[in-house]
Amino acid sequence: MGEPKHVVVVGGGFAGMACAKHLAKDHGLRITLIDRNNYHQFQPLLYQVATAQLGSSDIASPLRTLSIQHPNIVVKLAEVTAVDPAARSVTTQTGETYAADYLVLAGGSQPNFFRTPGAAEHAYPLYSLGDAQRLRSRIISVFEQADRDASLIDEGALTFVIVGGGATGTEIAGALAEMIKGTMSAEFRGLAVTAARVILVDHGHSLLAPFSEKAHDYAARVLQRDGVQLRFGTGVTEVGAGHVTLSDGSTLKTRCVIWGGGLMAASLAGVAGLPQAHAGRIPVEPDFSVEGFPGVYVIGDIADIPSPDGKTYPQLGSVAQQSGTWAARNIAAAITGKGQKPFHYLDKGFMAMIGRNSAVAEVGPRHHELQGSIAFAAWLGVHVTLLSGFRNRIGAFTDWAWDYFSKSRGSQVLDRSDQARIDWGDDPIDEVDASAVVTPAAIT
Amino acid sequence: MGEPKHVVVVGGGFAGMACAKHLAKDHGLRITLIDRNNYHQFQPLLYQVATAQLGSSDIASPLRTLSIQHPNIVVKLAEVTAVDPAARSVTTQTGETYAADYLVLAGGSQPNFFRTPGAAEHAYPLYSLGDAQRLRSRIISVFEQADRDASLIDEGALTFVIVGGGATGTEIAGALAEMIKGTMSAEFRGLAVTAARVILVDHGHSLLAPFSEKAHDYAARVLQRDGVQLRFGTGVTEVGAGHVTLSDGSTLKTRCVIWGGGLMAASLAGVAGLPQAHAGRIPVEPDFSVEGFPGVYVIGDIADIPSPDGKTYPQLGSVAQQSGTWAARNIAAAITGKGQKPFHYLDKGFMAMIGRNSAVAEVGPRHHELQGSIAFAAWLGVHVTLLSGFRNRIGAFTDWAWDYFSKSRGSQVLDRSDQARIDWGDDPIDEVDASAVVTPAAIT
Repeated sequence: MGEPKHVVVVGGGFAGMACAKHLAKDHGLRITLIDRNNYHQFQPLLYQVATAQLGSSDIASPLRTLSIQHPNIVVKLAEVTAVDPAARSVTTQTGETYAADYLVLAGGSQPNFFRTPGAAEHAYPLYSLGDAQRLRSRIISVFEQADRDASLIDEGALTFVIVGGGATGTEIAGALAEMIKGTMSAEFRGLAVTAARVILVDHGHSLLAPFSEKAHDYAARVLQRDGVQLRFGTGVTEVGAGHVTLSDGSTLKTRCVIWGGGLMAASLAGVAGLPQAHAGRIPVEPDFSVEGFPGVYVIGDIADIPSPDGKTYPQLGSVAQQSGTWAARNIAAAITGKGQKPFHYLDKGFMAMIGRNSAVAEVGPRHHELQGSIAFAAWLGVHVTLLSGFRNRIGAFTDWAWDYFSKSRGSQVLDRSDQARIDWGDDPIDEVDASAVVTPAAIT
Repeated sequence: MGEPKHVVVVGGGFAGMACAKHLAKDHGLRITLIDRNNYHQFQPLLYQVATAQLGSSDIASPLRTLSIQHPNIVVKLAEVTAVDPAARSVTTQTGETYAADYLVLAGGSQPNFFRTPGAAEHAYPLYSLGDAQRLRSRIISVFEQADRDASLIDEGALTFVIVGGGATGTEIAGALAEMIKGTMSAEFRGLAVTAARVILVDHGHSLLAPFSEKAHDYAARVLQRDGVQLRFGTGVTEVGAGHVTLSDGSTLKTRCVIWGGGLMAASLAGVAGLPQAHAGRIPVEPDFSVEGFPGVYVIGDIADIPSPDGKTYPQLGSVAQQSGTWAARNIAAAITGKGQKPFHYLDKGFMAMIGRNSAVAEVGPRHHELQGSIAFAAWLGVHVTLLSGFRNRIGAFTDWAWDYFSKSRGSQVLDRSDQARIDWGDDPIDEVDASAVVTPAAIT
């Protein structure tokens, strides 16, 4: 018995959280979990925060509560800016260095704008809690603006363009269309809310590409029923403060471009001192180790994880979670001198919610297909269960139930109008209007 | 029967909200409610948002839901920057003008720093939802900073100075002391949380001055039990980024000065074109009208409301609420050619919560005194009932119950670290540390 082994986990998302929790069961281990946010976020429901169906605290859980449950976990709020994979140490922006016996990198993803001009500056991604809060403020702000000056509707104030027909794009399109038709129509009496348009553009020719063709058709039907315009075979070539240019050369006036266009590895991958593959991800062995760097493991979205069919696993919460637990088992095996096991992913299927009472699900390893109300019920059950790790399950559920029956939205409070203002600058009309969206901070 | 009469209400706090709701019962009236925020906030519980016991959406309710309940109310998100009391019209920052048959000014209060040097820049008031969110981020940030660099404790990182022993100061002192002893001790294992200090300074010689002497003693006992240092007969002469100077000439190192020092009329009072009295408030007749300006009513905190004993009413939520309803009745009377009635305030007493299971209450017109658990139970009952206008009563109550039994805090998510950074600038140590409190926005 020497010193307890020290494991440093960078990132408290699905992968890092699962890894740290599993490691913590061995009381002989000391675990340091480093994240640049003080919370773990439940990413699959971000679009519900963005459309004011849930409050931020419903889907965010303070990472430090981990320390209460597991005395051998220490949580640090810091951004890792340098990694020495040979020494298995990381250094933070504030200059602290953490050296580990085993180093786990779980930095996650960030939106991939594919170098589209103006996208990083003007589009609204939906990948973090901050993204969701900014988008919520933006959606409410453009309605408030149009309510003050109806001529802005012709300038695209109520035109929402969603880029990408994957899960993020499809879910936010459905939720936004419902929010407009339900809440906004009731709340903005003087405004021609029917002039609002939701347009989803996608390079490909279907929604929810990884699902079955039946699901593609179902999703398209539901969105079209709710008034969403679908433009397939269309990409975005430029995003501006007041417009978006499409690959067919046409331009749409809009103040809100929502980016569901794709993901790439988080910036941690660029400072890890390790090789990078597709979308900046770090290639790993099937056991999550990295060739040439013993004791270093890379898990979750930031890893390029080989699958048995010669491809790599997609960036899904369930893959991330299982990779975290798997790597923790391999670390435990390494400590006791046992062999490393290659990842075996247990495919439980996947699901997406498209609108009220409308979801698609492919359940279990055989991807049994469900659509409509029954898929919606399954979706609801699964998400309430998954949220159970969060203390706010009851809160989220009452929010949900309330919303479902009343169509009112209590989370629709413009408490981040500061952020809605960010890209508002280069358009004189916007600048003036946005300044009227006064934050409480402006009271002096 | 001509055009429906148009009433413009400026401000959606307790006073303006009560006035608009009462007026809306007359379907022959058209009401425009203007506020610079899109929400109504339940001020008495702001200190619970600041100490992460409640989430923001638990105590904020979107003003536009009023329009759903009352078809004759139109809500506008705008800041009123000019008032023409003779014409009964107001103009907003964005240039729109609203002319009314009856104009109601209900702009509320703002913190009064009494020209204390540095207070407006460096102290944290607790009067708006934004204030509460900033203070929450600040409290969490200083703990995170001290956790990264324990030497900052000697620089005052865990020293909290509360200015003023009124309801705000007393309630935040108790809640903060509990948060430190409970949640923070459990979550920050490596940190010497016992080094944290909560110091309350007050010019006078008691807490909760409007209450009885018995309540003063009880409040002091509870706070001291929870480790709060009380410094009576002491004022603040200057607030800096890293310190506060007291009237006895001594200096305390602190990164968090909480301002419960007093209130003055909101900035609306300065542009109203009406006389101003004590703390900038607008003197009104006992019927809330303003001499020389027929059809103009001023209610709530922004008004200097004469009481029958020759004094004026205090700035309380219950006074504001009743003044709103009263003014609405007088407007209805004026329309039908009936007489105006002078305000009769129904005193239901008041209460303050000092800590877990500890409150003081003076109930009913005779101010029957309660202390301890029974006052706490009364406090809980009254506040849950008062919150019933808010859709999140259930959410708030489950949050509460959870907190009460688990002492965990789900709202403790640092999602406004951008704001915790505001006054952090002139101290080089702080600047570096604060930049590590990375907001989701910093992911690029």
